[in-house]
Amino acid sequence: MEQEVGGSRPPSCTKKMNDEKKLKPSKELPLGFVDRQEKELLTRDFIISIIKEVMIKYGFQYLETPSFEFTESIGKYLPDKERPDQGVFSFKDEKNWLSLRYDLTAPLSRYVAKNYQEIAKPFKRYQLGTVWRNEKPGPGRFREFLQFDADFVGTKNLQADAELCVLISEILEKCGLSKNDYSVKISSRKFAENLFKEIKIESKVQLSIILRALDKIDRLGWSEVKKLLGLGRKDKSGDFTKGAGLNEKQIELIEKKINDKDSKTNDVLEIFKIFEAYGFENYRFDPSVIRGLEYYTGPIFEVNLNFEIKNSKGKTVQFGSIGGGGRYDNLVSNFGNLDCPATGISIGIDRLVYALMQKKEFNIKYTKPVVICVFNKENIKKNVEILNKLRSANISAEIYPGEGNLKKQMQYANKINSPAVILYGEDEIKSGKATLRNLNSGKEISIEVENLSNEIKKIF
Amino acid sequence: MEQEVGGSRPPSCTKKMNDEKKLKPSKELPLGFVDRQEKELLTRDFIISIIKEVMIKYGFQYLETPSFEFTESIGKYLPDKERPDQGVFSFKDEKNWLSLRYDLTAPLSRYVAKNYQEIAKPFKRYQLGTVWRNEKPGPGRFREFLQFDADFVGTKNLQADAELCVLISEILEKCGLSKNDYSVKISSRKFAENLFKEIKIESKVQLSIILRALDKIDRLGWSEVKKLLGLGRKDKSGDFTKGAGLNEKQIELIEKKINDKDSKTNDVLEIFKIFEAYGFENYRFDPSVIRGLEYYTGPIFEVNLNFEIKNSKGKTVQFGSIGGGGRYDNLVSNFGNLDCPATGISIGIDRLVYALMQKKEFNIKYTKPVVICVFNKENIKKNVEILNKLRSANISAEIYPGEGNLKKQMQYANKINSPAVILYGEDEIKSGKATLRNLNSGKEISIEVENLSNEIKKIF
Repeated sequence: MEQEVGGSRPPSCTKKMNDEKKLKPSKELPLGFVDRQEKELLTRDFIISIIKEVMIKYGFQYLETPSFEFTESIGKYLPDKERPDQGVFSFKDEKNWLSLRYDLTAPLSRYVAKNYQEIAKPFKRYQLGTVWRNEKPGPGRFREFLQFDADFVGTKNLQADAELCVLISEILEKCGLSKNDYSVKISSRKFAENLFKEIKIESKVQLSIILRALDKIDRLGWSEVKKLLGLGRKDKSGDFTKGAGLNEKQIELIEKKINDKDSKTNDVLEIFKIFEAYGFENYRFDPSVIRGLEYYTGPIFEVNLNFEIKNSKGKTVQFGSIGGGGRYDNLVSNFGNLDCPATGISIGIDRLVYALMQKKEFNIKYTKPVVICVFNKENIKKNVEILNKLRSANISAEIYPGEGNLKKQMQYANKINSPAVILYGEDEIKSGKATLRNLNSGKEISIEVENLSNEIKKIF
Repeated sequence: MEQEVGGSRPPSCTKKMNDEKKLKPSKELPLGFVDRQEKELLTRDFIISIIKEVMIKYGFQYLETPSFEFTESIGKYLPDKERPDQGVFSFKDEKNWLSLRYDLTAPLSRYVAKNYQEIAKPFKRYQLGTVWRNEKPGPGRFREFLQFDADFVGTKNLQADAELCVLISEILEKCGLSKNDYSVKISSRKFAENLFKEIKIESKVQLSIILRALDKIDRLGWSEVKKLLGLGRKDKSGDFTKGAGLNEKQIELIEKKINDKDSKTNDVLEIFKIFEAYGFENYRFDPSVIRGLEYYTGPIFEVNLNFEIKNSKGKTVQFGSIGGGGRYDNLVSNFGNLDCPATGISIGIDRLVYALMQKKEFNIKYTKPVVICVFNKENIKKNVEILNKLRSANISAEIYPGEGNLKKQMQYANKINSPAVILYGEDEIKSGKATLRNLNSGKEISIEVENLSNEIKKIF
């Protein structure tokens, strides 16, 4: 039988292992993927718990779609429709092409189409989920990240759009941000549509290139974006991106219009009225908010952080947006003849975690276990007695889980940043008093086993 | 330029869309993937919150590795080493083969090898994460599921193995299970090793087939497993799986030994002593516990649920294990010359959720919003006043987010299972009293806006 070409079969590692006997498998991670540590994860959990609390209060339904969809189901929503194989991780199983979701909006549209009869409309749902981008990784650019989405499906009511901005603000403030720390910028895709009519853009391909170019103003600056609107741009690595091919006059007009703060469209004006009813003030109109995706049809929003954020090298950076969204009235109808206007917002949770961890006022509490040292394995019963007492009092505790002597045990306790160790050797057992050593102060006390929990709670 | 063959490029959907203009993308999900609803997700959140609470108390560190690893890094740990391309979703990027993780153990081993110098040893970590299996999907067999893993890395101390069983029990009981609802079964890979010596198995391939076959006793029954130990077995779909090729005598000996409850190995006896110190009794020795993976080297455990569980068709099923694990002393050393004995346990969270939702005593509470009906959009300020009052009192509430008349609004409120609607039209606004309709009882009362929150809290 001929060997299959294509498909998704990796080379045989076993063979490689035999051929190059001394070669061990890589300990490294592919570019664009990272291991995440406790402090980051606990910060993330904190944010997620706030999101869930706010979502319940606002009456959103909790939903989870799977990581995979049929490629054809999400292909149409990719940023670059003309190249649906770009940007996503795709796999072929026995019969079909599957892709890892690129965002949470396309799967929501598929879900609504699939369950159109059963669901209440408007359908308000939120989802927390990883999304994957098969893009060129770079510093701070990941190929997987956690996203939070809230959407209203099946309503043209602009109160929905307004409430998305209100709820994002509530989430951010509950996370500890002040009104000065963030802002919600608003515009409308209708503004861009008017503009494109004026400069006479007709091709959909050109339109899509322009949208993606304008979306990069914050990140690249206007001078670089100008290149993307014109003939094209070479990035730092030397890669060339073909531009939209606009002439100088067209680019000038775009520049003028997106800096004109008085060009509010009707939908934006109506949202501002609703904001007034909500007493919500922390927004601003900004026609330079463009959003790169083609599918938006009305109001669009972007959430920016305004406090100082440093990159991994300690350099203060232009952090840019942590999320945004907008109205997409025609997306669900791609799956069938369904009239299903919708609007939604996404927040990049990992980016928010990264920023929040840099706020001086923000300090996530995390607990390390008290270590009960082992002198003689035969006394395990005595040690477990203490262990169970501490754990019953909800104190993080462990019997030293390794096999070393006392010196090694102390090194271990210090390395894991344990707040205290408990010494309970033969002498201590006889006297019924354990020795508690506070590892921050270095102080030791002798204390009745019964009183250990209370004493330790003072340390935390 | 010639078109690239191989790699992982899906066909152009756009092209397909143009060729078959009337064809809409599929609303369906690929086999083996599911959408998950609120009740299931809230039950899952409940379990996860308990896991995290217990993990902190037991002194485990929270870690998250990414979904992708280099294929070569996880290939060696696949159930079938000889076919490392089977069972995983693999993908070639510009240079390398990447795979979605198949479990959380291989990524942990890679993590430990990568960070060997920096981490404290023993290293106790837990992880919650999705794993993917590119296997033939079937009823109740999914291609992605959420797993919880807790591991001790860098210790031969059998107290680690014992504590894994203790902590799993604490998690299950905190979830609401009684001691009769679950059991922890224990054996040792050393038992299987002795047995295989006795029946003279030498080939690693044969060994691996036997282990996987024996692991299926619970699911397939002994008579089917016998076929897998012999020449092979045809499953219901007609697919044939080649067997281990053992003769009748060898199979008979295996049957006898795995039913012999008195063949405890030394490691198991030591663990039982430690259980005694912990006062932990809810376990039993079971030599038929085999675990399909080759990499185990010592004690192995399996966690089973004993209460009645029905499948999606309402039929009571042999639910089998929700997790298990064991000691794998040589896994980390595959990445380098590291002496790193380890032991760990995994729980299939989705399976636990499924089972827990069927317990009569288990009832997750979930909240649906009170709906404030809209009579006249111009009165939005009045409605928002009520909305903000309710939300400030932490009541889930919304202004009807759609555009329909009162009848449509009531239908909506009923469809989302709202506990109550608030009517605040022109007359009510004048009188300063809102109408609150309890949707369960159908009763209506007229009530001062100030007192709405307290009245609604009585309904919940």
